[in-house]
Amino acid sequence: MTINVGVLGVSGYTGQSLVQLLTAHPIFKLTRLFSTSYEGDYAQLIPGFSSKAVPLVSSYDVSQCDDLDIIFLAVPHTKSMAIVRELMARYKSLKIVDLSADFRLKNREDYESTYRVVHDAPDVLSEAVYGLPEKYADGLASARLCASPGCYATSMILGMLPLVGRLDSNIPISIDAKSGVSGAGKALKESSLFCEVHDHLSAYATGDHRHMAELVQESGFSNVLFSPHLVPMQRGIESAIYIHGGTLDNVHALYEQYYEAHPFVRVYPSDTQPTTRLVTNTNDCAIIPKKIGDWVVVFSLLDNLIKGASGQAVQSANIMAGLDQTTGLN
Amino acid sequence: MTINVGVLGVSGYTGQSLVQLLTAHPIFKLTRLFSTSYEGDYAQLIPGFSSKAVPLVSSYDVSQCDDLDIIFLAVPHTKSMAIVRELMARYKSLKIVDLSADFRLKNREDYESTYRVVHDAPDVLSEAVYGLPEKYADGLASARLCASPGCYATSMILGMLPLVGRLDSNIPISIDAKSGVSGAGKALKESSLFCEVHDHLSAYATGDHRHMAELVQESGFSNVLFSPHLVPMQRGIESAIYIHGGTLDNVHALYEQYYEAHPFVRVYPSDTQPTTRLVTNTNDCAIIPKKIGDWVVVFSLLDNLIKGASGQAVQSANIMAGLDQTTGLN
Amino acid sequence: MTINVGVLGVSGYTGQSLVQLLTAHPIFKLTRLFSTSYEGDYAQLIPGFSSKAVPLVSSYDVSQCDDLDIIFLAVPHTKSMAIVRELMARYKSLKIVDLSADFRLKNREDYESTYRVVHDAPDVLSEAVYGLPEKYADGLASARLCASPGCYATSMILGMLPLVGRLDSNIPISIDAKSGVSGAGKALKESSLFCEVHDHLSAYATGDHRHMAELVQESGFSNVLFSPHLVPMQRGIESAIYIHGGTLDNVHALYEQYYEAHPFVRVYPSDTQPTTRLVTNTNDCAIIPKKIGDWVVVFSLLDNLIKGASGQAVQSANIMAGLDQTTGLN
Amino acid sequence: MTINVGVLGVSGYTGQSLVQLLTAHPIFKLTRLFSTSYEGDYAQLIPGFSSKAVPLVSSYDVSQCDDLDIIFLAVPHTKSMAIVRELMARYKSLKIVDLSADFRLKNREDYESTYRVVHDAPDVLSEAVYGLPEKYADGLASARLCASPGCYATSMILGMLPLVGRLDSNIPISIDAKSGVSGAGKALKESSLFCEVHDHLSAYATGDHRHMAELVQESGFSNVLFSPHLVPMQRGIESAIYIHGGTLDNVHALYEQYYEAHPFVRVYPSDTQPTTRLVTNTNDCAIIPKKIGDWVVVFSLLDNLIKGASGQAVQSANIMAGLDQTTGLN
Repeated sequence: MTINVGVLGVSGYTGQSLVQLLTAHPIFKLTRLFSTSYEGDYAQLIPGFSSKAVPLVSSYDVSQCDDLDIIFLAVPHTKSMAIVRELMARYKSLKIVDLSADFRLKNREDYESTYRVVHDAPDVLSEAVYGLPEKYADGLASARLCASPGCYATSMILGMLPLVGRLDSNIPISIDAKSGVSGAGKALKESSLFCEVHDHLSAYATGDHRHMAELVQESGFSNVLFSPHLVPMQRGIESAIYIHGGTLDNVHALYEQYYEAHPFVRVYPSDTQPTTRLVTNTNDCAIIPKKIGDWVVVFSLLDNLIKGASGQAVQSANIMAGLDQTTGLN
Repeated sequence: MTINVGVLGVSGYTGQSLVQLLTAHPIFKLTRLFSTSYEGDYAQLIPGFSSKAVPLVSSYDVSQCDDLDIIFLAVPHTKSMAIVRELMARYKSLKIVDLSADFRLKNREDYESTYRVVHDAPDVLSEAVYGLPEKYADGLASARLCASPGCYATSMILGMLPLVGRLDSNIPISIDAKSGVSGAGKALKESSLFCEVHDHLSAYATGDHRHMAELVQESGFSNVLFSPHLVPMQRGIESAIYIHGGTLDNVHALYEQYYEAHPFVRVYPSDTQPTTRLVTNTNDCAIIPKKIGDWVVVFSLLDNLIKGASGQAVQSANIMAGLDQTTGLN
Repeated sequence: MTINVGVLGVSGYTGQSLVQLLTAHPIFKLTRLFSTSYEGDYAQLIPGFSSKAVPLVSSYDVSQCDDLDIIFLAVPHTKSMAIVRELMARYKSLKIVDLSADFRLKNREDYESTYRVVHDAPDVLSEAVYGLPEKYADGLASARLCASPGCYATSMILGMLPLVGRLDSNIPISIDAKSGVSGAGKALKESSLFCEVHDHLSAYATGDHRHMAELVQESGFSNVLFSPHLVPMQRGIESAIYIHGGTLDNVHALYEQYYEAHPFVRVYPSDTQPTTRLVTNTNDCAIIPKKIGDWVVVFSLLDNLIKGASGQAVQSANIMAGLDQTTGLN
Repeated sequence: MTINVGVLGVSGYTGQSLVQLLTAHPIFKLTRLFSTSYEGDYAQLIPGFSSKAVPLVSSYDVSQCDDLDIIFLAVPHTKSMAIVRELMARYKSLKIVDLSADFRLKNREDYESTYRVVHDAPDVLSEAVYGLPEKYADGLASARLCASPGCYATSMILGMLPLVGRLDSNIPISIDAKSGVSGAGKALKESSLFCEVHDHLSAYATGDHRHMAELVQESGFSNVLFSPHLVPMQRGIESAIYIHGGTLDNVHALYEQYYEAHPFVRVYPSDTQPTTRLVTNTNDCAIIPKKIGDWVVVFSLLDNLIKGASGQAVQSANIMAGLDQTTGLN
């Protein structure tokens, strides 16, 4: 069996990671590489990539998607709305995995206030399934459009899901998150320059990061203080979740049981040292839950480019295609 | 005026930073360099250091301190107790600045349970003044022995002091702290190797780090969850302090007013980006207080080797010597 | 078909890389993990490693190798001599791949003067085949003992082989080589600490590095100035080879032709930017030859842990086992 | 005595380093900060900088330079020609230190072919003095215009000067140079992004780097192969100079004697480990000359932002102002 897939947006870090995963996938065949900024030999873009592995990169044209079964969109936020609308109108059986934020929020107003643009395809919003297979595997199985979650959101939501219904949904939760620099993408910004980032740590957008809307919608908790940081490393996210109070016991057992059947969430013993090394270059989310006095502390770690982006997208696409969700991801 | 000073423990990162500060100090004259592991030309230890700037390093001998007015002890925890006892017995007018933890805790039992050794000089504990000039300047002015605080403790205590009396002393506070690798010192540990640390972030000792005892004694708050992290950078600490509830208003004004007269605490506007670059290579503690909904969030940043160690020790020594506390530190 | 393999020395960086490669190998089955410093669950040593993938680590015992077809020795220089002698005496059909330097030098005196020890198994030296498959594939096919080359040596020799016979063997050649820190291994040395290495570059052992003996024996050139450097990165080696004079034309074509049939040496166009990214996490050696005026300049790059160690060892083992040399390495 | 100085181009890395040095200078008073991209409080640009230390940054206007005794131009290559011409026409006693390449090359054609622009002020070229105080102190003492050298050029020229007249000027010399990323400046280029540079080493522009013209003009040697590299560190340059042949003895003594009277060139013993730590944050050039068999190997190290840019500019300005060249630089 072969399933033809394409990627739009192959030059960014997420697109590049997608191409690597798809090249090694046993069922998906990468037949189209589209870019808005580059045409030609993909190996010229990516040092060490073998030219033979993939077709030439071409400029995106909706008419060239007719041989595709699945397309992955790795374009910036606000750029995929129009593309999705056009693809859905033209190809009824094409499955779409959108890695941007454009279809993640169910509520159009939330999207528009968060991203400060008018939504271009509001009628499609209700059809999109949030691409977190640990929560929406059933929906994904029959979805035409998957809205693949953000990296911060994935790490935080997976870290909180087992607590839903166990703690008051209004309990105050502070989340101190740290991300490697690839999370900022390949865009030319002064704040992404080596000399600006190297050997320094910084906090940013405390309490108003745009991933909050996604978090409130999907986590089940409403009083969350989200505090992201930029760390001088290439990849990896750690979300440290701090909750005081509640009368929850057996926190570790709760998490273990909750994720028992989920191949990409690994619940580690409470005394494991939380480190991004647990997950680098894998599609795993590592979770280390602890009870410390009256505090519940949960460390949730993932590779922002894989479980936080390309790997999770492939995981969802596997489900959409009727494959085992782990296909090509181990 | 010249004040003769010596340093015991010149080969570690803190000792090295002390030597650099003291070499440039306009009043202190660095006349003795002692080490327990090295004798000879200091420039052989420190690439680029000029041999002419300081005397030869010699093995420590209590009898060679008779020409000193002040001695700084940069030796490991548990190693300075006996040295301090002997120095105090022999030299009545010598002032001692101890950078280890040995005299920081007022309560002998706290020390012994935290460091798992018997205290060697318990009778001296009450005489030691905790070397946080922002809190104990008066005590330092007449002290013979200064117990210079730890780097994490300094950043957290300075971040919380203005809240004492304004918030309930039992309010739950979570502190997510991040440190550069020099905080671990020059000891040969696998966890300090380049390949173990580089390009990764890790949490450690969540909730049970030994600096907690110091924090509880000095911060004025008792329900603190301290969560330290190791970040792949050379120096710098950020403590992010998260507090929910309370009815505190005008948080920023409160901090500004509190630290108005303190030259080394800089309260920045709430919209300043918290980054360790604010403090690298300075004796400053940068504080950025924010009110976000019902949350009080305080970022406290310092250079662990300076305001978190050597600089703060010199600041205290200045006060002990009757100098302006900023002498040699700008 | 299944071939049982074991590794002695699984806790170091090379051993770890070997375990990763062998776990994914389609024919080799990793049935023994030996260590001299650790016993138990390998996943405890390596963050994120799955316990199920490999057997428990046990203390090395020569009697427990009877079910092995191949053993890899990833132990320090001077430590494998005795182990090899004992294994060869006891198991006539066992194949051994030694990653230490102990059997690389044909001349016992060279070894003894370079490593300053008496060789323990001099009679075995002649039986060892130097494990550079690009040069000794035939010998490896029938070898019992493979002396796998060092990382610097591999990069330099592969960079010079096509020039043998084309340039005078006495022509002066300067080689400026740069290595990531993993090349120094996991040993606890001050010079491998994060704070000593990070953000700095250093040269060391100019002209007298112990890999010179290997280089002179295998490269075909005798007047080489080898100048290694340590660079603040985890992995990767670049050897820049500078040669003035000679009347060599068509340098690039010469290299392309020479390596045409060698799957792991990729000769890139002369205008390719030489970067360690070309080879990271691969078993490739990337070679970029240039003619610049009267100069021949060759950049040779590899991943010191793979083509410079574990990957090359597996490549040789494939040949020794009658497999295609690329098995498990793509 | 007070000498009024201004800087044009304060937002780049070199400009920032200049501002730091000039703020601490005992005689120079920094009265004008000009920028082409920013106006306002300098502390907003540079995290941690104290607003009180310097005047507001204003847009450059030639008419506002009338109160200046010296102006430093830290603008990109090709941008300072017109500025210099205008300043020289208007202010006869103003001294100018230009940190761009625009007046370094004596020969207009060399400049135009290297930088691919027409020279805007060719008549001024002959008046410019090359700002290498170790070679041109006399000329600088009476110069109106100083063409401050590049960072690579400074490290290489200082590494070769003592050999002039001792070795044939046509002897083949290969120079493998490595630079930290700040050498590329703050311009937004993909190749300066953290994720592109971090954890990798690359060579670039082998044999055709534009600093070659400067090198040939000033070094005294004509057959040089210059091979620059980019290293994942913030600052620092090492030039490794390899020369075969010649009958030079006493290489180390030759260098020591040559630089005896030069305060910013430190000749280290031949067995010193060459590391950028010898020079970080100083105006020193560290030189380690070695004789190894028939080879002369010279390591020359400096901080590209100080001795390779801002510090050297201040050193030259000191001489132009009749001060001791070390003023404000120790």
